Amino acid sequence: MQNEETLKRLKIVAGHMGGVIRMVEEGAYCIDIIRQIQAVQAALNKVSAGILEDHLNSCVTTAIRGENPAERERVMREITDVFVTATKV
Amino acid sequence: MQNEETLKRLKIVAGHMGGVIRMVEEGAYCIDIIRQIQAVQAALNKVSAGILEDHLNSCVTTAIRGENPAERERVMREITDVFVTATKV
Amino acid sequence: MQNEETLKRLKIVAGHMGGVIRMVEEGAYCIDIIRQIQAVQAALNKVSAGILEDHLNSCVTTAIRGENPAERERVMREITDVFVTATKV
Amino acid sequence: MQNEETLKRLKIVAGHMGGVIRMVEEGAYCIDIIRQIQAVQAALNKVSAGILEDHLNSCVTTAIRGENPAERERVMREITDVFVTATKV
Repeated sequence: MQNEETLKRLKIVAGHMGGVIRMVEEGAYCIDIIRQIQAVQAALNKVSAGILEDHLNSCVTTAIRGENPAERERVMREITDVFVTATKV
Repeated sequence: MQNEETLKRLKIVAGHMGGVIRMVEEGAYCIDIIRQIQAVQAALNKVSAGILEDHLNSCVTTAIRGENPAERERVMREITDVFVTATKV
Repeated sequence: MQNEETLKRLKIVAGHMGGVIRMVEEGAYCIDIIRQIQAVQAALNKVSAGILEDHLNSCVTTAIRGENPAERERVMREITDVFVTATKV
Repeated sequence: MQNEETLKRLKIVAGHMGGVIRMVEEGAYCIDIIRQIQAVQAALNKVSAGILEDHLNSCVTTAIRGENPAERERVMREITDVFVTATKV
């Protein structure tokens, strides 16, 4: 996913968030609001996955091919951390 | 959580989303962007939980005490559905 | 979901877990093991949703129709708590 | 996480699953059962994260340093896929 694609998608999500705010302002049904929040979260998951894919193909590849073991350790630790948080969000 | 509290929190999340968009525009480090997206999602989980709590104390209570079995079925089915989606987001 | 159905499903999941243990013992490919663990978790989500549905139709309904406000508070708080944890598991 | 550590943890989770089955057989309170299922899922998340960490340090590192672009593509695609599923479990 290119940077521009990421931006485009995030702006769509931001627009969706604005819609959720309007729903609350207009007194929409609770369950409908929760469903829209869940849709926003699902869209954010897709954006994160796209960013992770780019990251693996760029920074991670560079670090793993590089000569700096501490840097390699760091990038791999970050991926595990992001995965751990993903299972908790 | 009152409606006003929900709105206030959602507006904070929307501001946070704006921050994520700026990070992407400024070419921030991928992992930092993913972490901020995960923070947005965690904040949305809290908002959803607050809305659900209100819903249980109002609509669900009314329906369960009411005389309409179809309505009772509906509100309880909705809660299960929202729970199922929650475990998939 | 009846109790018997819950038991049956949990026993299938336990069998699946035994399969994951054998995969590790036999040195299966990491990603295949992770995928099977995720399948176990998805199956557990379905079991939880079924138990929640039963709970709403029994204990929660009884409590909400009952005359004990503290009991009503408790059952509704529990549902919100379980939802909050669900979004973190 | 070594293979032996993974096995040990999975066996503890399997024992925990046996406990959940007994709870259902003995007619435990629904919410307590759901909480134990959620604890099993959280434990499985930790096992998956440990396996992923090993995988990054072994197979992924080998593939990224290797001369086979298709193999590199494959391992990185797998990590993104596992991340996507993680956000849905």
